[in-house]
Amino acid sequence: MELNKLLSTIDTELDQSINRLMELLRIPSISTNPQYSPDCLKAAEWLVKELNTIGFSASVRKTQGHPMVVAHSSSEKPQLLFYGHYDVQPVDPVEAWNHHPFEPTILPNDSKGVIQARGSSDDKGQLMTFIEACRYWKKQTGQLPQGISILIEGEEESASPSLIPFLKSNKDELKAELALICDTGLFASKVPAIITQLRGLVAMEFEITAPNKDLHSGLYGGLAVNPLNILGKIIANLHDQNGTITIPDFYEGVSELTPERKVEWDNLQFDSSDFLGEVGLLHPAGEKTKSPLEQLWSRPTLDVNGIKGGYSGDGFKTVIPSKASAKISCRLVGNQDPEKIIKNIKEFVISHLPKDCQIQFIDHGAAKACEMPLTHPMFATVKKSLSEEFSTNCVFAGCGASIPIAGFFQDILGMNSLLTGFSKENDNIHSPNEKYDIDSFHKGIRSWARVLYYVHQSN
Amino acid sequence: MELNKLLSTIDTELDQSINRLMELLRIPSISTNPQYSPDCLKAAEWLVKELNTIGFSASVRKTQGHPMVVAHSSSEKPQLLFYGHYDVQPVDPVEAWNHHPFEPTILPNDSKGVIQARGSSDDKGQLMTFIEACRYWKKQTGQLPQGISILIEGEEESASPSLIPFLKSNKDELKAELALICDTGLFASKVPAIITQLRGLVAMEFEITAPNKDLHSGLYGGLAVNPLNILGKIIANLHDQNGTITIPDFYEGVSELTPERKVEWDNLQFDSSDFLGEVGLLHPAGEKTKSPLEQLWSRPTLDVNGIKGGYSGDGFKTVIPSKASAKISCRLVGNQDPEKIIKNIKEFVISHLPKDCQIQFIDHGAAKACEMPLTHPMFATVKKSLSEEFSTNCVFAGCGASIPIAGFFQDILGMNSLLTGFSKENDNIHSPNEKYDIDSFHKGIRSWARVLYYVHQSN
Repeated sequence: MELNKLLSTIDTELDQSINRLMELLRIPSISTNPQYSPDCLKAAEWLVKELNTIGFSASVRKTQGHPMVVAHSSSEKPQLLFYGHYDVQPVDPVEAWNHHPFEPTILPNDSKGVIQARGSSDDKGQLMTFIEACRYWKKQTGQLPQGISILIEGEEESASPSLIPFLKSNKDELKAELALICDTGLFASKVPAIITQLRGLVAMEFEITAPNKDLHSGLYGGLAVNPLNILGKIIANLHDQNGTITIPDFYEGVSELTPERKVEWDNLQFDSSDFLGEVGLLHPAGEKTKSPLEQLWSRPTLDVNGIKGGYSGDGFKTVIPSKASAKISCRLVGNQDPEKIIKNIKEFVISHLPKDCQIQFIDHGAAKACEMPLTHPMFATVKKSLSEEFSTNCVFAGCGASIPIAGFFQDILGMNSLLTGFSKENDNIHSPNEKYDIDSFHKGIRSWARVLYYVHQSN
Repeated sequence: MELNKLLSTIDTELDQSINRLMELLRIPSISTNPQYSPDCLKAAEWLVKELNTIGFSASVRKTQGHPMVVAHSSSEKPQLLFYGHYDVQPVDPVEAWNHHPFEPTILPNDSKGVIQARGSSDDKGQLMTFIEACRYWKKQTGQLPQGISILIEGEEESASPSLIPFLKSNKDELKAELALICDTGLFASKVPAIITQLRGLVAMEFEITAPNKDLHSGLYGGLAVNPLNILGKIIANLHDQNGTITIPDFYEGVSELTPERKVEWDNLQFDSSDFLGEVGLLHPAGEKTKSPLEQLWSRPTLDVNGIKGGYSGDGFKTVIPSKASAKISCRLVGNQDPEKIIKNIKEFVISHLPKDCQIQFIDHGAAKACEMPLTHPMFATVKKSLSEEFSTNCVFAGCGASIPIAGFFQDILGMNSLLTGFSKENDNIHSPNEKYDIDSFHKGIRSWARVLYYVHQSN
């Protein structure tokens, strides 16, 4: 087995790899919106076909929600379980896209160009880096690397409701020494990174009903309670003037940064005005007493993600609406208890309701934060591989995002996870014009090839 | 000329009158939404055709916006100018309607039934009461009542932008002794009423932009300013805990109720829990120190009429949106200065913006409040006619709504207005399932017939 030969095949056949990714990107597998369920199935079937083609024994596995894709490179118990997700975020506001989100387009940049499409970076482009690495390995050696299993889910963007039951009922099949989760990014868009801590997530929405129908503000204004005013007061009271979240006991289980971690992070010399400058901002807006990296990685947050109520079309309507609603989510850290926080938020909201108002809640999932133990030798292997590929030292970083799967692997399979990935801060994840740099895709495939090579050596 | 004969013709031919109203109701003349402009023109042309058919010299008159309908019963200077509007409110949420809003449907009630359709009560059903009265007058006497002019506009629901220039450039043609405005309702749905004071209106919207694109709350949450949180704080601060509006100088020009007016209103024995009970509420939510009728008729208000921002579709999206917007409007009283209030609201909103936020305002019109002088003899004539028709004493009442036209007639034509109408509190004006009782329509036609009769007598 010769690494350089493997890498040069990857280089020369990059265009074919890109074409395969484009095929997958054309499937609008939006998991949060029921009308796209058939497309989620289609994406799963496409992956199974590809995986079988290159020698995996792969199958679509039914769940209560969108199906799972499971694949094994060999019959024995898996050494490594690779995880990714084929579902993508909704695309609205669709008018903000330069190209149709599901007609992947290659646009120029200062390097090899970028692929613009919903899911290009989160997470189809990333999961394909691993599959392509396996493909070229097979091509060169005649067989797949041994002891590799793959799990690709279709509900990551909608809080993975089917994952826990699925893991529970397939423990023996899926439990490996370590999980490789490829759904994160480079540090500051330049330096390869292994993620050592993730924030948890709770997501919910509530709808306030005041009058039993929309009212004419001329006939009722002044006398009838307006649910939009109530909603405003609730939102306004979620944070105090220091950016501290006011939900009772919200910070229970949140611990301060360890001195070691603090030193590590200070050494990263993170520049928040660079980071925020990318999106037209300048000033950190979180807890005034915490550093920007703490606000991003190690502190919990509460954000309103959507509001709705009254007339918001063209022109004007002097209406006092019957209903007003908001979607809110929290990023959790340390030992914050998601269930307890959901309960406290509901009580907090209810405590702000005046007479005559009804309220309805919808839960959209909950996951604890988690911290990765760095004990498994793979951490050294991956660090070495990525440092080589990027010709710069791969760092251990935090991450503000929530990838509940890592916690589920820990809780249900007793399996640790190693998180790494190749996306960049400016990839517009969850936003219009999501893109994945061809350089990220290329280096990603090459990085996994290196990882497979060193694992092969050590076996 | 025999009144009873006229009234009985109205009774026997009521079905034809209803059919003509239904025709007009089938035209979706929504003025606030540009896509319905052709329908607004269509409604104007329909009215001109009808008015010419019964002997008026009527024409469609172009404006910068939707056209006016002007008609004259005779060549001499008009004695009375009748006013109504053919435009209607938007229909959303359309799914809340029992029947298509522009397929008028007759539904049973405890009397002659109701006509359900957008515009049935506001204002197509009402303006047709007058036109139908003229029709039957002509039928019986062979000619139209003399000295009657009609002005029907198509922008009442979008703050009448073209009206002022139109009145200015057609002063001589339109100035009459008195205007008859038929766009108001019965008192407590039972007692005929002449409206002696109207609230003014300012309407505007603003859009806050924070990041220059939608962001992933996992990657930016905690650090990036969220415009939805800012919007919430602005809305929350518009009122204090006593329901008092906090915009600086907002109450400038608001006078307390005169003792006489107070006695009049107390005698009306208004029951706010009945009034609010109709819409599923119980508790007055306005200024704690004011009576319910004051909150409705003589006090200014500020309401949020619509909000928008982030993801509000099915499922969930952990986004920090780039933009958040709100539509707000105020009902004005006394000598409140609309322009000054718009200026103060804008300054108030801007003063609540943190760093990194941009804001954009859109004005949606402004009108002063106005009080009617009761000097013209027509007030006695109309009071007598309506009291006879409803067999109960017609009252002088206030009104929470804003009918800027009365102010424009006063300012531009130096002409006073008499406001009356036959709609009911439960007509769902501006709401889904708007309706007009056939009894309102019938009594309305008969009431105008009586008015025309007594005017004829006195001439």
